[in-house]
Amino acid sequence: MSATSPYTPADHAYMARALQLAQSPGVLNTTTPNPRVGCVLVREGRIIGEGYTLPAGQNHAEIQALLAARGQHGEAAAAGATAYVTLEPCSHHGRTPPCADALIAAGVARVVAAMQDPNPQVAGQGLARLQAAGIETCCGLMAAEAREINIGFVARMTRGRPWLRLKLAASLDGRTALNNGASQWITGPASRADGHRWRARACAILTGIGTVLEDDPQLTVRLDEQEGRPRQPLKVIVDSRLATPPTARLFDGASPVLIACAGSTTDGQAAALRARGAEIVAVPGERGQVDLAALCGELAQRGINEIHAEAGHRLSGALLRAGLADELLLYYAPTLLGDSARGMFALGELTALADRRDLQMMDVRRLGDDIRILARPR
Amino acid sequence: MSATSPYTPADHAYMARALQLAQSPGVLNTTTPNPRVGCVLVREGRIIGEGYTLPAGQNHAEIQALLAARGQHGEAAAAGATAYVTLEPCSHHGRTPPCADALIAAGVARVVAAMQDPNPQVAGQGLARLQAAGIETCCGLMAAEAREINIGFVARMTRGRPWLRLKLAASLDGRTALNNGASQWITGPASRADGHRWRARACAILTGIGTVLEDDPQLTVRLDEQEGRPRQPLKVIVDSRLATPPTARLFDGASPVLIACAGSTTDGQAAALRARGAEIVAVPGERGQVDLAALCGELAQRGINEIHAEAGHRLSGALLRAGLADELLLYYAPTLLGDSARGMFALGELTALADRRDLQMMDVRRLGDDIRILARPR
Repeated sequence: MSATSPYTPADHAYMARALQLAQSPGVLNTTTPNPRVGCVLVREGRIIGEGYTLPAGQNHAEIQALLAARGQHGEAAAAGATAYVTLEPCSHHGRTPPCADALIAAGVARVVAAMQDPNPQVAGQGLARLQAAGIETCCGLMAAEAREINIGFVARMTRGRPWLRLKLAASLDGRTALNNGASQWITGPASRADGHRWRARACAILTGIGTVLEDDPQLTVRLDEQEGRPRQPLKVIVDSRLATPPTARLFDGASPVLIACAGSTTDGQAAALRARGAEIVAVPGERGQVDLAALCGELAQRGINEIHAEAGHRLSGALLRAGLADELLLYYAPTLLGDSARGMFALGELTALADRRDLQMMDVRRLGDDIRILARPR
Repeated sequence: MSATSPYTPADHAYMARALQLAQSPGVLNTTTPNPRVGCVLVREGRIIGEGYTLPAGQNHAEIQALLAARGQHGEAAAAGATAYVTLEPCSHHGRTPPCADALIAAGVARVVAAMQDPNPQVAGQGLARLQAAGIETCCGLMAAEAREINIGFVARMTRGRPWLRLKLAASLDGRTALNNGASQWITGPASRADGHRWRARACAILTGIGTVLEDDPQLTVRLDEQEGRPRQPLKVIVDSRLATPPTARLFDGASPVLIACAGSTTDGQAAALRARGAEIVAVPGERGQVDLAALCGELAQRGINEIHAEAGHRLSGALLRAGLADELLLYYAPTLLGDSARGMFALGELTALADRRDLQMMDVRRLGDDIRILARPR
């Protein structure tokens, strides 16, 4: 234990394990709208139980870890134990009882949390409740890592807007498609599979009417069998004038469809789309366009933490210009399409280099023959 | 020694050392028009002399290694030794006497060459001369690595055309400049320094009249002091109608300038450019443009091994379309300029994805905040 940190190397190791549990693929893709949480119970220097958040309405990580400890070590297993949790235990009755109460009842002696719960219904009250029960608590160990795992949940709770990840696949000269729209399979199979894993962790997949009309995408998550059967995210279409064809492939009956328009939601076209199972919301903005910020707010209200956007240059550019793109997931294939092909971002005419949109590259890696870059606006 | 390879691990280690000598920065930037060569002399399991090619007209690698061995171990040092050379020893009298003769005279017992000399004046005759003198020879150890070091020399010898490396710096959406031409400093200092190291190893820096008029570049190599004082490559301007201003900064008096045009070389503008020290050659092609392939042939005739091209989207696209770009050196800065900004390659309108230009990424790395990709057409 150093003079500046209250945490031992063992504390770090147990929290690292809890973070690992919180971001295992099953957890990443299933807890919506709840945060992804991992919990490790330790007594006398060994792990006596582990758990992670189950799908909404089922047990949280702490309850799972307590059940595991009891199952293996008896009813009083957790008495005197330390609980490592990647997020402050909840203190409110949601669909499940408060985890703080369960930890108190189990006789846990110490709780180490990576970060406070940004949910205003918790926001320190979980830790306060534990302290009031005489439990030693500390908070902030590996907080940055914990925050990344629930970046969408944190965004929704703290700013009322989901985390929006904008995915594009382009050639090395920054072109997504030929001028005539031909674009399928620019990137290779490794990139496409990776793209589906990112889709799988999102609560919603968002695209624009241009892409719907041109590519007729399914907007589903398609994973390898060994990666499990994914939850299918909500499909969100930005479609100002309700031009989505009722015959579009995205109407597969398997996952809900939300169409955001800027005009009437009661005309014949709206009725035809509703008949296909779509929900239609009007979020009118300037110049007959959908108000993208308002749409994001609407999605937050619906418990959407992460939005996975895959769109053409117009909607991609509009999301960037509106300051709504929190992260860019860019795949580059080793090919060139030339200046006449379609670009990545319609940003309008820049007249000074100072108007460029600077990014920070968070991660760069090769995927098969391609490159993947994860970047965030500075 | 395996059943399939005549080479021992020690052979590999000594050749690796010779390859290292052949590509040390001093050698990379100075031997033109000669190939970069390294030589290691080994006797009784230890290195008795090392050498690499000096600037043209001075000693080749083998002579340098023999001198080193004699200086440290006496006149008969190399008797019975093995010489590891990254290129077959020369057999002809150029500006220096044949290295094969020097190795024979020194009493070397065995010569291991990484590759045959592609120079038709040598092409196996160096090894044959050694064999005729009773010296054991073998050739082909680490040949691929050796070939890469002299990729320009090999290209010039085998196809009569230099190796052309096309460098571009772009934003992550594939834009090199704003529509109004503003482009300076898109990439960071690490990329710019790296770009100068690539310039330094080239025999010529090539650009187009568009870049000259817009950016007024110096086209010089500017290295850090500790990297030594570089040889300044020939400056080559593709300038069909001789629009280069005699006041352009590229006329610095320090390095020769060659302007390739498609029309008259005797008019007033030509005279004004000659007065500034430029040589002017007419290489007329189709539609009043410079014949780029003929220009490359002309540069090969002048002993140019590697061309470093830095040009705008028009000339970059033209070099690609003509099949003259052997390698792309692409720097990407973490920024976006948008669809209205200038692209990287004018390739004409593609109507089918099959017409795209596929590349193979040879190397991907981060440089400061940027990414560098080295790619070759497939």
